[in-house]
Amino acid sequence: MDEFMEKMSVNQLRKMIDHSEASSLSEYIREVNAVDIAQCAEELEDEEIWKLLSILSVQDIALILEQANEDLGMRIIDNIPMDDVIDVLSYMQKDDIVDLIGEMPIGKRKLLINKMRKGDRNIISRLLEYPEDSAGGIMTTAYIALRSDLLVSEGLNKIREIAPKTEVIETIYVVNARGQLIGTADLRHFLTSPKGTLISSFAKENVISVHPEMDQEEVAHLVSKYDLNAIPVVNKHNVILGIITVDDVIDVMIQEYNEDILELGGVSKEESLDTTLWESVRLRLPWLLINLATAFLASMTVKMFESTIAQVVALSSIMTIVTGMGGNSGSQTQSIMVRAIATEEIHFKKHFYSFNKEILLGIINGAVNGLVTGIAVWIIYHNFYLAVIVFIAMIGNLIVGGIFGFAVPVLLKKLGADPAVASSIFLTTATDVLGFFIFLSLAKLFLPLLV
Amino acid sequence: MDEFMEKMSVNQLRKMIDHSEASSLSEYIREVNAVDIAQCAEELEDEEIWKLLSILSVQDIALILEQANEDLGMRIIDNIPMDDVIDVLSYMQKDDIVDLIGEMPIGKRKLLINKMRKGDRNIISRLLEYPEDSAGGIMTTAYIALRSDLLVSEGLNKIREIAPKTEVIETIYVVNARGQLIGTADLRHFLTSPKGTLISSFAKENVISVHPEMDQEEVAHLVSKYDLNAIPVVNKHNVILGIITVDDVIDVMIQEYNEDILELGGVSKEESLDTTLWESVRLRLPWLLINLATAFLASMTVKMFESTIAQVVALSSIMTIVTGMGGNSGSQTQSIMVRAIATEEIHFKKHFYSFNKEILLGIINGAVNGLVTGIAVWIIYHNFYLAVIVFIAMIGNLIVGGIFGFAVPVLLKKLGADPAVASSIFLTTATDVLGFFIFLSLAKLFLPLLV
Repeated sequence: MDEFMEKMSVNQLRKMIDHSEASSLSEYIREVNAVDIAQCAEELEDEEIWKLLSILSVQDIALILEQANEDLGMRIIDNIPMDDVIDVLSYMQKDDIVDLIGEMPIGKRKLLINKMRKGDRNIISRLLEYPEDSAGGIMTTAYIALRSDLLVSEGLNKIREIAPKTEVIETIYVVNARGQLIGTADLRHFLTSPKGTLISSFAKENVISVHPEMDQEEVAHLVSKYDLNAIPVVNKHNVILGIITVDDVIDVMIQEYNEDILELGGVSKEESLDTTLWESVRLRLPWLLINLATAFLASMTVKMFESTIAQVVALSSIMTIVTGMGGNSGSQTQSIMVRAIATEEIHFKKHFYSFNKEILLGIINGAVNGLVTGIAVWIIYHNFYLAVIVFIAMIGNLIVGGIFGFAVPVLLKKLGADPAVASSIFLTTATDVLGFFIFLSLAKLFLPLLV
Repeated sequence: MDEFMEKMSVNQLRKMIDHSEASSLSEYIREVNAVDIAQCAEELEDEEIWKLLSILSVQDIALILEQANEDLGMRIIDNIPMDDVIDVLSYMQKDDIVDLIGEMPIGKRKLLINKMRKGDRNIISRLLEYPEDSAGGIMTTAYIALRSDLLVSEGLNKIREIAPKTEVIETIYVVNARGQLIGTADLRHFLTSPKGTLISSFAKENVISVHPEMDQEEVAHLVSKYDLNAIPVVNKHNVILGIITVDDVIDVMIQEYNEDILELGGVSKEESLDTTLWESVRLRLPWLLINLATAFLASMTVKMFESTIAQVVALSSIMTIVTGMGGNSGSQTQSIMVRAIATEEIHFKKHFYSFNKEILLGIINGAVNGLVTGIAVWIIYHNFYLAVIVFIAMIGNLIVGGIFGFAVPVLLKKLGADPAVASSIFLTTATDVLGFFIFLSLAKLFLPLLV
């Protein structure tokens, strides 16, 4: 299906199910794609799912399951008899089976695994032991590994045999007699070398590989940095356990991206639009209470100057401009830093220039914003000294924003915390507390000029 | 090189350059990877770059250039005689050449293109016409396309011939006599089918393809949704123009991700840690001035209640808690919405439940935070009614946060704006202005109870 053709819609799918159009459905799944069917199926009622499953072959169901989200996956499994489930699973990639089984209640999971063939059972049990978000948790065991002492002709025979079952054929993993990964070979060499050539003669040593415990985000980073189609997973003896394919790496990147966007906004990565009310309360309230403590700190700073405010009540409306602008300016700096930390190591040399730049930026942007604010204050409140104090306080608080926006993410990273999540709370505390303090203490100092 | 092996460091590279170790360098580039060398080379002085280039072959320089960032790319080109540049480019993938040439001043670009062979010149000129961030701008012209009426044996001969020069060999694009894309064929079929089979017999119709004008972000979305290794680019007559490979799609995703993180923080996507001071001022100041307008609006709201604040000066310290918490709570809702909008279409049915949920969340989280704040206010200021007003205002402003955090991103999306960039400014305006208004007008209403 290309983007100009009509895409399968939920209603079309409903019609096809109603008319039991098994062969058109099967054709769409195999010849067009299973992704669209899976996405439409998410919208179906349980009864429709049941009917859909009853007209499809186990192979077709397997193709849909590989593309289904957690929720649909569970609904499909719940609508098939246990023995058929085993049948369906036998057509699926091992990493997709693990994703599916990993979501099941422990009792059902054990029942299923026990019904599998011994070979599959061992692989699945082993894969299930790795954490979901580790290299082991996302790897597949379907890859082509060949001994380095084979000839090209022997290799090609094995490749022909294994190819239909593997996800990656462009890269062949080269192993020694003990199954240790010693290199990779490009399928191009198999196609272009004389039949009697030894695989070892064109295998590329120095493979980039990972251990099964590695965090999936690091795996994604390696695959994207080195433009790989797949990355092999090896144990501590360098024996190949599986590979992680680039499509799974893309899924990891999307997942991590979504988590970062949420955490930047003070929301748990577990929350989505469908989260229940009480679950949302549980996830969001703690973060709000932490923020409340910060707000109290700022409030107490203002309270220190109540007698000053009582004499010049205009201070109460102007002070919020100073703190607000410090926060905005600081969050600009913070965004640059959070991104810089995520994509490169921060060297001290670069650091120093950039740190100074942020302070200078605070002065320049503070002066411009302070000037605009000062002039407005002068016009509205007819007090030149109040305008001057706003001007100075604005510069001061934008410097505060620059310093904390720069330093907080760097320090959090050094302490092993995620700068994207925790930076904003410290930054806001700094720009609020110090912003109020700078502005109000200047006002207190020059009080005789203001009243 | 695997992750446990020692990685090339800048100092190692410096040593190799100093000792003119051309053959070890060349071996590292070809056998290990060019990515590390390119990354280290970014840190070198111009003189060192010059020396490095003088000892490397044009093929090796081409491999490094393919991995170099813009800055390094320009420095390398500036250090090679014009004729050698043409030589180096002839070893590079067309899409990488376009990326490199696209950064050059127009005069130099024309000079280079005119020196190219005619075939290359035509391809490069055509590719340069597409916008950088469109499908045409990131596609490569190195792919394998075969006529559907060829036999497997003929196809394999062509594949053997073209394979060394293409990035993707797993997918073969099947075209008709007029060059129109009519399907794809899996290399597996070529390996496993009898030599006399027609390609058309196993080609898969219904290819997912894109037009060259499509935005790169949409391309990335299609590739990730359908788990593709590459996506073909076709013109309006469905003639294949090029393909976009998955490694370039990953680069697009990282780029868009970084841009989103920056824009969420109110920074232009053009800015990085290395941006000059005045460029940073130019990029950040406009956003701060927009924010300043918002801050003024909030400040004017407070000014309306100056006479009330003059009588109960405690209001000035407490009011900032109410507005701050509304903003925090609203940005939680906003993050959920921004992410939801980016990953799925928002249906009204889902909408309505979620919208109600956000209002209920505002009430519940507002009540808890309001209770805590109220008790603190009661203890500190010994005024029960002030505590009650804070409690009510907190609930009110967290409802405001929920409503605007939900509605603003949805409305911006409908108006065609990027919700990630512009939402926060409207949200802050709402929670500040309405937060002050709710709290201070309640205080004004019950003023006799507060003084």
